[in-house]
Amino acid sequence: MVEEATQFSVLNSYRGTQPSVIDADVHTVIPSVGVLFPYLTDFWQEYITQSDFKGPREDPYPKNAPTTIRPDARRTDGIAPGSKLVVVQEQSLDPWHVRYAILNNTYSLESVHNPDAAAALASAVNDWHIAEWLEQDDRLRGSIVVPSQQPEMAAREIDRVGAHPGFVQVYLPVHSLEPYGNRRFHPLYEAAVRHDLAIGLHYGGAPGSPPSAAGWPSTYMEEQVGMAQIFQSQLLSLIVEGVFDRFPTLRVAMIEGGFTWLPSFMWRFDKEWKGLRREVPWVRRPPSEYIRQHVRFTTQPLDAPPDTAQFLQILGQIGADDLLMFATDYPHWHFDTPEEAFPTGILPDETARKIMFENAQAFYRLG
Amino acid sequence: MVEEATQFSVLNSYRGTQPSVIDADVHTVIPSVGVLFPYLTDFWQEYITQSDFKGPREDPYPKNAPTTIRPDARRTDGIAPGSKLVVVQEQSLDPWHVRYAILNNTYSLESVHNPDAAAALASAVNDWHIAEWLEQDDRLRGSIVVPSQQPEMAAREIDRVGAHPGFVQVYLPVHSLEPYGNRRFHPLYEAAVRHDLAIGLHYGGAPGSPPSAAGWPSTYMEEQVGMAQIFQSQLLSLIVEGVFDRFPTLRVAMIEGGFTWLPSFMWRFDKEWKGLRREVPWVRRPPSEYIRQHVRFTTQPLDAPPDTAQFLQILGQIGADDLLMFATDYPHWHFDTPEEAFPTGILPDETARKIMFENAQAFYRLG
Repeated sequence: MVEEATQFSVLNSYRGTQPSVIDADVHTVIPSVGVLFPYLTDFWQEYITQSDFKGPREDPYPKNAPTTIRPDARRTDGIAPGSKLVVVQEQSLDPWHVRYAILNNTYSLESVHNPDAAAALASAVNDWHIAEWLEQDDRLRGSIVVPSQQPEMAAREIDRVGAHPGFVQVYLPVHSLEPYGNRRFHPLYEAAVRHDLAIGLHYGGAPGSPPSAAGWPSTYMEEQVGMAQIFQSQLLSLIVEGVFDRFPTLRVAMIEGGFTWLPSFMWRFDKEWKGLRREVPWVRRPPSEYIRQHVRFTTQPLDAPPDTAQFLQILGQIGADDLLMFATDYPHWHFDTPEEAFPTGILPDETARKIMFENAQAFYRLG
Repeated sequence: MVEEATQFSVLNSYRGTQPSVIDADVHTVIPSVGVLFPYLTDFWQEYITQSDFKGPREDPYPKNAPTTIRPDARRTDGIAPGSKLVVVQEQSLDPWHVRYAILNNTYSLESVHNPDAAAALASAVNDWHIAEWLEQDDRLRGSIVVPSQQPEMAAREIDRVGAHPGFVQVYLPVHSLEPYGNRRFHPLYEAAVRHDLAIGLHYGGAPGSPPSAAGWPSTYMEEQVGMAQIFQSQLLSLIVEGVFDRFPTLRVAMIEGGFTWLPSFMWRFDKEWKGLRREVPWVRRPPSEYIRQHVRFTTQPLDAPPDTAQFLQILGQIGADDLLMFATDYPHWHFDTPEEAFPTGILPDETARKIMFENAQAFYRLG
């Protein structure tokens, strides 16, 4: 494919300084709940077969949206991109020269109201990841999915599989019914820290509440663009509620939420913290310091200016070159040119190396 | 007061190029519903006197928050800052050399569930503004308050007082139960356009729903910082729903929501529009063009970087010098130095003049 050649060329030019990349956001896809049957008990197999319940019905990536998949990634053999290891290898890992890929699965478990069903499906997804992905290709690392609406149950699932060396992260959909700083989520963070796992807040989520503080938008475009605001709300909540004060080793990745909003967000947050910090005495340092210490951001979708100089301004305003982690968001990537994937060419070699490899290597403790 | 002298000095230095300012956000305050009794019918006076209903109980500015009022603006005579014309003249209009001030009142009518009560109180506030403010000082211009939760009733109130030359704007709290692009609000915009009035989306709002897309935050600090996200959601909604396509002369001010988030927001929005615009074919131009044509932003609170060079970068990234309108947000102003109010000193004279005066003059059609 023409596009593959183009993708290849950006990496070739990048390979001048570094032999490979870490892709911090590669998606596995569950084409139907049947894929999980080998990992479900007889009870749940029967429940799903005999009732109308077929697993989550919400999908943050509408099948035919131009942002969901590149036309040239569609296959004639009917296999959904992201649904089988061989396809991911062929479309993503091999052409991109990926040394490590962090797998994320957006199965909308948060939309399942029966907590036992959500927990059973979460376990099945994790076991499917272990058996058919993590143990089949040593380039892969996984994110544990959990019934996030039930933090105690989520903690139990983290304890069940958290020791598997393939897992490096706990996946949480960024859109939740309550802000993730809320103390009812603390058991979940406690479990993550116990296993030295990062928390990955990822684009999407179907908790049943509007994806905007101003209520239900009418269009998918509003959900897509507005997702950046939910990332901001969650980051605010995590810091204000003192999650990082309570769990000083906790690491949080914000995946697929953009990052050019970060300077403005930090300026406002630091300023209001100065005025209002009496309300939250446990927040002892400016919020921007918590962000720089604990939080990382993936690069796709790149919410960057068309102007190269302005893009460099943003990186300067962020004030650190270790906050960004390269990601393709396969198979949702929708950039056309290497420069749009991430313009490493305009960066100093050392910064490019950090963004393409070292930041994620350190964050996810990769060898 | 020391601070008054300091404020004076920024304006003195500014006065080198322009004799006065337009303050695009000055607050009148209703200390208790009794103030409105001369403007309420016997029925509502009796209703309020005999029942537990005493008007809105929500206030976006908690009385003693450091961000609500400067300590030196508190008075020993017991008069609440912003509650009487003479106090506003003394604390704001005179020392700041204000040529025009746009009055905004944050009485939380959107929190009143009885639509007739909300409408009656809205009319009373508007008549109080006319009688005790707009007709008493020719520097004042007002924003019409409306029962925004009932757009048809809001339109009727706009028609009732919209011809008064003192009114230049319709006030809407930025936090609403539904996004303002929703077509049920169109009658309200139609009425505003009929009277050539701007729409002012202002910090705050108590519609009963969480002020975050991730649910109820725990603290006031989260509400304060997070308000910027609600402005972003509303701007998204107005453009995506085609409000400016339907009402091509509509002007919208975003008041007290910050503006340094604008570049990142426009980059993301323009990019996703390119990918998804088939969904909203009426949006024919990049969203950033709608913003530059129809929307203006007030400068307080200044969500700016501490670094002057970065501040200039942001203004460059916004790509236009006619989008900002100076505001003090009296009596909620909480800057200590002239540079924090707005660093006009670092700007070219022409840009400073636009921000301090001409942009608001053009936007609000001031003589």
